[in-house]
Amino acid sequence: MRVIGVDPGTSVTGFGIVEKNSQHFRFLEAGVVRTQPRSSKADRLLQIFERLTGVIEQFQPAIMSLERSFVGENVQSAFRLGEARGVAMLAAACGGLDVFEYDPTSVKLAVASYGRADKQQVKMMVRRTLTLSDAVDLADDASDALALAICHLGVASMPIAPPARNRASAAEWRR
Amino acid sequence: MRVIGVDPGTSVTGFGIVEKNSQHFRFLEAGVVRTQPRSSKADRLLQIFERLTGVIEQFQPAIMSLERSFVGENVQSAFRLGEARGVAMLAAACGGLDVFEYDPTSVKLAVASYGRADKQQVKMMVRRTLTLSDAVDLADDASDALALAICHLGVASMPIAPPARNRASAAEWRR
Repeated sequence: MRVIGVDPGTSVTGFGIVEKNSQHFRFLEAGVVRTQPRSSKADRLLQIFERLTGVIEQFQPAIMSLERSFVGENVQSAFRLGEARGVAMLAAACGGLDVFEYDPTSVKLAVASYGRADKQQVKMMVRRTLTLSDAVDLADDASDALALAICHLGVASMPIAPPARNRASAAEWRR
Repeated sequence: MRVIGVDPGTSVTGFGIVEKNSQHFRFLEAGVVRTQPRSSKADRLLQIFERLTGVIEQFQPAIMSLERSFVGENVQSAFRLGEARGVAMLAAACGGLDVFEYDPTSVKLAVASYGRADKQQVKMMVRRTLTLSDAVDLADDASDALALAICHLGVASMPIAPPARNRASAAEWRR
């Protein structure tokens, strides 16, 4: 199974693609979309969308694993983050991918076996899981995205079913 | 000048297109995108995106006037609303439209000369401004979208420049 993890943000969006065959994780790609601060918001969203759709077309993952981060966000920053998340989900829908969402604690638990692991601990475990040498440069947001992909692949391979895909939470969407 | 007003929402997104030549407002189109509650969130965003890009392609507006609504929203609903807003902005970027944002009070002031006007008062003034007869059915969200378009056209025609377009608020975007 091939999964793209996406850590959406309006300035920096991380993405990472991981494949799992039997018990073996394989690193395929990781990177960040850094949008131009002088561009309009709409143009920045377009930069994110175009990069994600390009990566999805190239690597053909079946699943998008997306961060669901409510923690420490105020309403205004939630709006901004929601805009980037919406565009990431749209890229998934355009490519026919199913979307699963995981909160940061679940990701840390799945990757580092500790729900309060810091970024460096997560990155170390991502490197270890994917057998990436220290020579491979890995931005924080790309590492977080790979952790999201690993999280889904770990949860999906467990005997217990993964959390229902987002269609189950349709009630949230009613205004 | 031709403007599409968009009132984004995950369940219902209103849109309305208005043209202004000299002092004359002309109604072109209005409608709502009602997404399927049983669809996944990503598919619902795709439904919004496809409808908006279709309408933009058909009517070729130069500007998108978008509601910026923070009022009464908690963080979780701001996330959801942000997702729909992001997709609306992306549709604008794909069509080469500039995006302007207006808060609900500014829209009510521009359309009904009263910042606390209710939906029915706004709808009445939208009908009057666009000389729409009562026979024309107008959903609340479509009326709000037309009000956004009228608001931009009113503000843009005043001797004072309209609010700086969204690229001025790049600072908001930094995480």
